Amino acid sequence: MSDLITAVATRARAAANVLALATRTSKDAALEAMAVALVEHRAAILAANAEDVTAAEAGGTPAHMIDRLRLDESRIEGMAQGLREVAGLPDPVGTVVRGSTLANGLELRQVSVPFGVVGVVYEARPNVTADAAGICLKSGNAVLLRGSSSALRSNTAIVEVLRGAVEASGLPADVIQLAPGEGHDAVKQLLRARGLVDLLIPRGGAGLIRTVVEESTVPVIETGVGNCHVYVDAAADLEMALEIVLNSKTHRTSVCNSAESLLVHADVAEVFVPKVVAALQEAGVTIHGDAVFAGHQGVLPATEDDWDTEYLSLDISAAVVPDIGAAIEHIRAHSSGHTEAIVTGSVAAARRFTAEVDSAAVMVNASTRFTDGGEFGFGAEIGISTQKLHARGPLGLPEMTSTKYVVTGDGHVRR
Amino acid sequence: MSDLITAVATRARAAANVLALATRTSKDAALEAMAVALVEHRAAILAANAEDVTAAEAGGTPAHMIDRLRLDESRIEGMAQGLREVAGLPDPVGTVVRGSTLANGLELRQVSVPFGVVGVVYEARPNVTADAAGICLKSGNAVLLRGSSSALRSNTAIVEVLRGAVEASGLPADVIQLAPGEGHDAVKQLLRARGLVDLLIPRGGAGLIRTVVEESTVPVIETGVGNCHVYVDAAADLEMALEIVLNSKTHRTSVCNSAESLLVHADVAEVFVPKVVAALQEAGVTIHGDAVFAGHQGVLPATEDDWDTEYLSLDISAAVVPDIGAAIEHIRAHSSGHTEAIVTGSVAAARRFTAEVDSAAVMVNASTRFTDGGEFGFGAEIGISTQKLHARGPLGLPEMTSTKYVVTGDGHVRR
Repeated sequence: MSDLITAVATRARAAANVLALATRTSKDAALEAMAVALVEHRAAILAANAEDVTAAEAGGTPAHMIDRLRLDESRIEGMAQGLREVAGLPDPVGTVVRGSTLANGLELRQVSVPFGVVGVVYEARPNVTADAAGICLKSGNAVLLRGSSSALRSNTAIVEVLRGAVEASGLPADVIQLAPGEGHDAVKQLLRARGLVDLLIPRGGAGLIRTVVEESTVPVIETGVGNCHVYVDAAADLEMALEIVLNSKTHRTSVCNSAESLLVHADVAEVFVPKVVAALQEAGVTIHGDAVFAGHQGVLPATEDDWDTEYLSLDISAAVVPDIGAAIEHIRAHSSGHTEAIVTGSVAAARRFTAEVDSAAVMVNASTRFTDGGEFGFGAEIGISTQKLHARGPLGLPEMTSTKYVVTGDGHVRR
Repeated sequence: MSDLITAVATRARAAANVLALATRTSKDAALEAMAVALVEHRAAILAANAEDVTAAEAGGTPAHMIDRLRLDESRIEGMAQGLREVAGLPDPVGTVVRGSTLANGLELRQVSVPFGVVGVVYEARPNVTADAAGICLKSGNAVLLRGSSSALRSNTAIVEVLRGAVEASGLPADVIQLAPGEGHDAVKQLLRARGLVDLLIPRGGAGLIRTVVEESTVPVIETGVGNCHVYVDAAADLEMALEIVLNSKTHRTSVCNSAESLLVHADVAEVFVPKVVAALQEAGVTIHGDAVFAGHQGVLPATEDDWDTEYLSLDISAAVVPDIGAAIEHIRAHSSGHTEAIVTGSVAAARRFTAEVDSAAVMVNASTRFTDGGEFGFGAEIGISTQKLHARGPLGLPEMTSTKYVVTGDGHVRR
């Protein structure tokens, strides 16, 4: 273990021990101070960000990446607003999750507690720095932030402002730190810091997530890859189906809960396929279709890879399936386990689809775009888990805690 | 990925898909059939076990290991009884964990679902084979069992009997399989089977658990290492303290919830230390003590290593601490995060200890031995988690499930 990560994580642990005992009142005050400080020090943050943007442009970074990297006054206001929203949410720490008095009189309580030290590994967008810091602080966790090197100046400036605000509010500044070092080796040290770091959350593209999952000895919550399907059943209201397909695909394309694949029951294919092809093409979507779909003008024939591809763009794969069983089989073979939707008027079909499709979220007659912490009413979210351990689906504040059992007796011993 | 593990895990996945939809009635019938079959085929199981025992004896395996390996009629009855107890527990699958109607009318339900395919890696005791199979079956999970090679004949015989019973009861036999291959390479393949296996649970000694945790890309629940502390506070009832120390250390020594370290507040040291030394020595315990303890006849001076040692024997480390803060600091530095106990009559001391000690279970005026699925009223347990992700403390049936969100609308799209 490198001395660098050990030193930083040890400071984080000490700060986490203090933060774990902080009242909601003091945590909310720190969040408010962080929000105020971001706006107050926006000039310094924007100056640092401008340097990152200039360097990225000089390095030939593509325009959409530059856009994600770039901050402006309204994005900084958005970060501040996000911190205030977290302050407004209930404290997830100290909830009695379960409790009972045992047969022998022992009082058993399972209580939510912070993890301790959480590492967040993320890509270009510097606003994640403030979001993650806010969610971790409210849930009582010290955070080690590992953004991309392209945003290092921005992230350094934001963290400096946030730390100052936390300290001024009376909590230890070390609850928010940048993970030390630069480049892939430094990331690796974070991934191997088992015992020093309690949890790692990767936020970013499939490559980043795969690296973290493969190389980490620290427990990981895998987030965000979404090869989401919409299945239009034989018993679907086809007008509704059209709206849901369009919304799932085109409402926002660069996000993990947008649809990437369309499956249509054979019984409605003759009517529905021409309509959905026309509507999708009208919306600018490129269709990668099976034989039925590819019979239409402008539809590209799908390759085997298309069924497994998260396009994150105005592309969709599309196929006709003989029945709901085939739809479920297709989803099992190709889904990333994020979100799948069925459009159907049949209770039996809905019941079967929701029982047999094993994804974080299964929608009935609703857009895949609803898988979102905000939409679910959780307030802030730090990502969407596609793994089954600990938390699945949107990660709100309660998912950022562990539990412990507190057992009280009056001299109880085992006989 | 080896073809062997892929083939076995693929069969397990197909079986898990069927099992996930099985009713409680059919799962309980399978468990009862498994119990009946174990007793019915006990001769075959005992014959296989006798071969394992003979081979182990010939190989010079120590007597206590032979004892753990050896089956007899009563241990087989115990395995059958364990399966019937699991049948008697509520079905953990299909529980609505959380539910609400969102502001836009979407109906949101978070429902417990099986993980899918669970790997259990364990050491000598062949009864774990039946225990793990029963818990996984009831929680809807297909299991891949990886016992030690010393118990391979016993485990093979048990699994054959269980599979026959499951199949006869109408569920797929492949919900219970031995992980393929032999030796460390085969274990490694299981550890790298991410995507094929949803969860790994190691059950065994510290070495096994470390290997699994370090080398696995499959999500792991770490179990069982317990360097448990008893802290006798200044405000303790010293008679109660004596009983709790003795029970925590000597009730059973080879288990993870037995105490390995004793801390005594300086204010009561003069009275309590001589008493506890005498009582522990009377019970056959070797004390590895700090300067105060080592001043007593027969107490060995503790080395730095002693504070971190899980003896699993009639040994205990012991120290006097100046105050409760020092006790908490000592525990933070040396505990494995399993169970710590305070003996105190002071509400303030109990409140501080339970808040600041970050372990799976914190006992107030009760023996560390109570951290146990059976004692907590959970019925069966597959281990005791000492990690913070997913489940902490005894792993009962509910901890063997994940969740998914089912969201029902009537054409909802995002605007």
